[in-house]
Amino acid sequence: MTVTSPAFDTLLARYTAVRGRSLALAAPLSPEDCAAQSMPDASPTKWHLAHTTWFFETFVLEAHEPGFQPFAPAFRVLFNSYYNGVGAKHPRPQRGLLTRPSLDEVLAYRANVDARMARLWPTVAHDDALRGLIELGLQHEQQHQELILTDILHLLSCNPLFPAYAKASDAVAPEPAGALAWHSFDAGLTDIGHAGSGFAFDNEGPRHRVYLHPYALASRLVTQAEYLAFVEGGGYRNPLLWLAEGWDWRAAQGLEQPLYWHRIDGAWHHFTLTGLQPLQGDQPVVHLSYYEADAYARWVGARLPTEAEWEHAAAQGTAGMAQWHGAAWQWTQSSYAPYPGFRVAEGAVGEYNGKFMVNQYVLRGSSSATPSGHERLTYRNFFPATARWQFTGIRLARDLG
Amino acid sequence: MTVTSPAFDTLLARYTAVRGRSLALAAPLSPEDCAAQSMPDASPTKWHLAHTTWFFETFVLEAHEPGFQPFAPAFRVLFNSYYNGVGAKHPRPQRGLLTRPSLDEVLAYRANVDARMARLWPTVAHDDALRGLIELGLQHEQQHQELILTDILHLLSCNPLFPAYAKASDAVAPEPAGALAWHSFDAGLTDIGHAGSGFAFDNEGPRHRVYLHPYALASRLVTQAEYLAFVEGGGYRNPLLWLAEGWDWRAAQGLEQPLYWHRIDGAWHHFTLTGLQPLQGDQPVVHLSYYEADAYARWVGARLPTEAEWEHAAAQGTAGMAQWHGAAWQWTQSSYAPYPGFRVAEGAVGEYNGKFMVNQYVLRGSSSATPSGHERLTYRNFFPATARWQFTGIRLARDLG
Amino acid sequence: MTVTSPAFDTLLARYTAVRGRSLALAAPLSPEDCAAQSMPDASPTKWHLAHTTWFFETFVLEAHEPGFQPFAPAFRVLFNSYYNGVGAKHPRPQRGLLTRPSLDEVLAYRANVDARMARLWPTVAHDDALRGLIELGLQHEQQHQELILTDILHLLSCNPLFPAYAKASDAVAPEPAGALAWHSFDAGLTDIGHAGSGFAFDNEGPRHRVYLHPYALASRLVTQAEYLAFVEGGGYRNPLLWLAEGWDWRAAQGLEQPLYWHRIDGAWHHFTLTGLQPLQGDQPVVHLSYYEADAYARWVGARLPTEAEWEHAAAQGTAGMAQWHGAAWQWTQSSYAPYPGFRVAEGAVGEYNGKFMVNQYVLRGSSSATPSGHERLTYRNFFPATARWQFTGIRLARDLG
Amino acid sequence: MTVTSPAFDTLLARYTAVRGRSLALAAPLSPEDCAAQSMPDASPTKWHLAHTTWFFETFVLEAHEPGFQPFAPAFRVLFNSYYNGVGAKHPRPQRGLLTRPSLDEVLAYRANVDARMARLWPTVAHDDALRGLIELGLQHEQQHQELILTDILHLLSCNPLFPAYAKASDAVAPEPAGALAWHSFDAGLTDIGHAGSGFAFDNEGPRHRVYLHPYALASRLVTQAEYLAFVEGGGYRNPLLWLAEGWDWRAAQGLEQPLYWHRIDGAWHHFTLTGLQPLQGDQPVVHLSYYEADAYARWVGARLPTEAEWEHAAAQGTAGMAQWHGAAWQWTQSSYAPYPGFRVAEGAVGEYNGKFMVNQYVLRGSSSATPSGHERLTYRNFFPATARWQFTGIRLARDLG
Repeated sequence: MTVTSPAFDTLLARYTAVRGRSLALAAPLSPEDCAAQSMPDASPTKWHLAHTTWFFETFVLEAHEPGFQPFAPAFRVLFNSYYNGVGAKHPRPQRGLLTRPSLDEVLAYRANVDARMARLWPTVAHDDALRGLIELGLQHEQQHQELILTDILHLLSCNPLFPAYAKASDAVAPEPAGALAWHSFDAGLTDIGHAGSGFAFDNEGPRHRVYLHPYALASRLVTQAEYLAFVEGGGYRNPLLWLAEGWDWRAAQGLEQPLYWHRIDGAWHHFTLTGLQPLQGDQPVVHLSYYEADAYARWVGARLPTEAEWEHAAAQGTAGMAQWHGAAWQWTQSSYAPYPGFRVAEGAVGEYNGKFMVNQYVLRGSSSATPSGHERLTYRNFFPATARWQFTGIRLARDLG
Repeated sequence: MTVTSPAFDTLLARYTAVRGRSLALAAPLSPEDCAAQSMPDASPTKWHLAHTTWFFETFVLEAHEPGFQPFAPAFRVLFNSYYNGVGAKHPRPQRGLLTRPSLDEVLAYRANVDARMARLWPTVAHDDALRGLIELGLQHEQQHQELILTDILHLLSCNPLFPAYAKASDAVAPEPAGALAWHSFDAGLTDIGHAGSGFAFDNEGPRHRVYLHPYALASRLVTQAEYLAFVEGGGYRNPLLWLAEGWDWRAAQGLEQPLYWHRIDGAWHHFTLTGLQPLQGDQPVVHLSYYEADAYARWVGARLPTEAEWEHAAAQGTAGMAQWHGAAWQWTQSSYAPYPGFRVAEGAVGEYNGKFMVNQYVLRGSSSATPSGHERLTYRNFFPATARWQFTGIRLARDLG
Repeated sequence: MTVTSPAFDTLLARYTAVRGRSLALAAPLSPEDCAAQSMPDASPTKWHLAHTTWFFETFVLEAHEPGFQPFAPAFRVLFNSYYNGVGAKHPRPQRGLLTRPSLDEVLAYRANVDARMARLWPTVAHDDALRGLIELGLQHEQQHQELILTDILHLLSCNPLFPAYAKASDAVAPEPAGALAWHSFDAGLTDIGHAGSGFAFDNEGPRHRVYLHPYALASRLVTQAEYLAFVEGGGYRNPLLWLAEGWDWRAAQGLEQPLYWHRIDGAWHHFTLTGLQPLQGDQPVVHLSYYEADAYARWVGARLPTEAEWEHAAAQGTAGMAQWHGAAWQWTQSSYAPYPGFRVAEGAVGEYNGKFMVNQYVLRGSSSATPSGHERLTYRNFFPATARWQFTGIRLARDLG
Repeated sequence: MTVTSPAFDTLLARYTAVRGRSLALAAPLSPEDCAAQSMPDASPTKWHLAHTTWFFETFVLEAHEPGFQPFAPAFRVLFNSYYNGVGAKHPRPQRGLLTRPSLDEVLAYRANVDARMARLWPTVAHDDALRGLIELGLQHEQQHQELILTDILHLLSCNPLFPAYAKASDAVAPEPAGALAWHSFDAGLTDIGHAGSGFAFDNEGPRHRVYLHPYALASRLVTQAEYLAFVEGGGYRNPLLWLAEGWDWRAAQGLEQPLYWHRIDGAWHHFTLTGLQPLQGDQPVVHLSYYEADAYARWVGARLPTEAEWEHAAAQGTAGMAQWHGAAWQWTQSSYAPYPGFRVAEGAVGEYNGKFMVNQYVLRGSSSATPSGHERLTYRNFFPATARWQFTGIRLARDLG
């Protein structure tokens, strides 16, 4: 990871805040809610709470705590996500079968690791590398905070009772974004990617030069009303609009609308963290696969942006362009690949990002479920083209000239 | 069902006892334990608790309670197992995703239905058919009590921590059964199947005549030590011992021993309700598929009994024959089929048994997990040839003459 | 096998006739037709031609030919169907990939084995066991002659051109069977199964006693017109008519009519060996699974017969009962199981029948595709409940008394 | 397609040569060989012969032949590969079941279309667009000529007899490529992609500018001996060398070496068009998936090139660099995506390339199976990361500076 070590005071405050927020996210949930796994791609809340703690225990305490003893030796395997360098892993599709340890035990695990981390703070103050590693652990936990929300939404969506995670009154409706306008960008060289002293994941660098062809970007994301026109206009019935693989995938599953959309007595609804709600026409459409995003773009004679186009435009803070962050992750047509000069980190944390660089597509921006402060101009989120359970939407692009 | 209505006092006491025992079975379990589903064949404890209650609400209260109002309309679908006559059903493989209603809500549902049943008792006293239906509900609940144990054992077996459902000190080790002896039975006509005034499921009748050829039955079930000799003697490597379909099934899954058997540092263990334990050589081997039972029998030059042979012998109470009940369900070579003259009951309860009469094999006896008093000479349990998570074992048979 | 050795002259004539008929069956087919495999259950014609030859080479010549040398060592594996006792087998689902050896080479293989068999005949005359083995090989080849027809029909059915195997003018339409009548049979003991000096497969014996309850059998098979009424009367839409497993199977595959039935411009057709033809209302319905046969029987308030009921009735030659043979294989509700006292033969041929005795149902009679003279009163054909590509139909039964 | 219409005389000669070569490729094959399909990704030779003919009939004759009548109306569906704009398609996995039309009928179809094309030539001389379309048809047929070889190799590889397509004496062993050297390229802007008057597929343009970072490329492809060191050095056992998805794929299939490699009595062989042969240590390794190519590169501290790096280097004809063409298709780390400004062609041929631009990786160069003259500097071949049955190898790259 590209990490200039954060200042000690800041880090301590951040540690407390980030760790506390994970607990707050789990607060509305019952032990059963926290334990269930609705599909292999999603994980139980309890698992997220334990795995983020495992990260600190394994990558920070194990190396730096005098007389290190694991809280529970079995947790090393149970809560390892995908780090082959750490050893064995519990099979991902079976995370929902781990009814033991109980939620209470996992909360005790969190408290234990937090207490041991507290004893480590005097050391931390003088160790740049260690502060960098802790910051990585916090960024990692923030990623899982978003997953807690996407995964619990998916779980609750499988329940015919349509239970709500939160009260509707708690939801902050984002500002509607106004009419769609196109902003043009000239051809030329530009630099993208992370550089400098702030935190970034390793996959965001090195900062490097790219040549861009003239292009235009939409001022805002595609709305639910706009996407509804595609749905009702036969967009899911016309193979000529779709990538071949996307069409086969759509047909095999009989998909006719975005994930979580339901037509009930003739009225369109979508299932959200506040339960089943009427579509909000001026809000961004979310829960789209890459295939759907691409098909919609073709339908309106546009395309998805590349990640370089997105970052170049976003970096300029062009007046009138909105929803870069906090509205939805925005599919790009860029396959997730290493930047020129990319090197994976030494040791097990080197498995963090690089080994996923195949058959995934980069998403830029951030969503309504992204923790505040976690978003970044150079952030590279990535998911397979089939992923729909994330808060994924569309910003349109066009070739110019 | 062949039901001569039980006496009122008896039934009331039974209702209280049976309903209470379900709660007792769930008592050692956390809400998470009660909610998880480890495979499509198994159901969450919470689902069992709710479904057995649904049975009374749907088949008893709905027809007989003045001003019937369902506890929760959605439960009619959520907790319907397989009754097409009742309407829609929640998909079986997704029972583990029902984190709502919570365990507390399901317990409240149970209390509510029990209270409404209590108000119905004055009517019950004078209604033979109603008493018969309530008895069916209790027998049904007892079946699910066994499933609670088999399903929770399977769930816990998926956890690498090998958690125990009960303390080892709570387990009552059955009497070892002594040396295996063969008992002979002459050819001739005999009657099998249920008749008379006691309760029996519809599939146990009508009582009818069959002709038996001379045969011998083993005095007790195959032990773990005997089966271990088959395992270590290459029984799982020799296709000539297996039914062709069984061999393909075994090979595809790479099976080399019974379900729940583990060889740890050279010593054989099995996972049980009291956790991981050393094999108990003189106890019956359990958790065998039909294929394994059949292969073992062939290995020792024997075969599985027919259900008529089993019942004919068991009915005689032959001295020296043991383990008819309470040790293990005993695979027979009899495919589950209707007895001559079998008629399904009118209405939705007619779906109870008959529609499963294909590609399943009859098991006789009862197991250590069968509720006391639920066993019966004419009882016909049935499972597909692949089923291993039940307490299923082997009593050998041989042709004579 | 229960084989009293056939007389020498008869056997020689039979050998020539049976071997020649296999070639005649393949004559209308191109090399491509003979090589393709349309599903794992079906085999290419070329494979049938080679495997039946392999049977003679492996079980007759290898043991009895002086200085035995295989025609081609690789064929021992390529054309072994399922005999583990013989050694390795080419995987069944890949039989259609064996473009080499070519059809010409397989025909040369047949000629070679036939020539070597001819040199063996002097020995055969004096060896009862050998004559028995040759008879088994011929019966085996006759079984594959039926499979050549069922498998080629399935292959051609996958071709949207609907090509015909034979000219319609070659088809002999069986006599229509008249109005359906019921014939009653009393309760009592009867003997079924093969005994005596003629050929029978091992699974047809030993002859043994069974007790039958009073029953009635239909005088003829269910016709296409009768079954069409079930199709058009919603039979495929009502789960209460179906075995639970059958309903799930039907729903998963979206089945709405028998295999090979097509509704074209409002008119019902079926695909046959003479191509696409209009339904023949008074002819037996064929290509039904056990599930469909069972559901139809339930729809008309009847059931499928047991194999003992079928044989008992057929043995009596009751006046007015028709279509015992040559019309369609008739599903029975009897699971395929060993008769009392059944013993598999010594050696590899012992794998012929016994190891398939699980999860299959017995079919009695014979079909329009069965070679003339191959049918037998005690014949036990068997297929899984899902099988539809055989010529399988329905004779109804009812309980009496 | 970017097509400047070829001169009339050239085109006529090319038509005759290309069409004739397809027949020559099929000449060593029997009708059975030509009809079989070994996996959904591969097609029968007969299908290739028919589909390439269908292309001319559908896209050339249908629009330009006076009084157009199809050779056989059903062929429009049977031999449509993936053009939704043309209408229905026969399901791809069932191409091997089309035993009718026979090979002879397909050859007659070819002759018929060639004859009709001959009558069209006078028109062609004066119609630029039509000549362009014919050239596209020929390029299309050349692509299928390579597929005929890759698909027949796969089919024959499924046969335990290891039959050879051609005599070993017919194989031209390419020159060994000498020691591996690295050639460096400076950072800077360069133009890649097709421009100008020659033929190219639409996906090769528009020519456009890219910025390259300093890099080095290997002078030749990785050899079989080098790759063998990876195999024997545990490369297939170390997850840290693999992309996560690649490792899971490898493990699920138990892969331990390239496709077609066999270790026989301790000696490594590979199956080729001339049958089973010993490894040729100095020849390029082929039949690798993207995952294997990527893992090998990581093992030697290198990476795969981008397609821009490859084209930039190849365009310069750098002395000492070899095997750009004719040795193996060379995996690049570039996901198959549209070039800036890419537009799909109007009409059904617009489905030729664009709709496959997701989850595939670009391969550059050409292989030993590519028809002579079909290769091109800007050629963009593409396959999913799992593809192994093509002649796919590795040219290594490195970051510099």
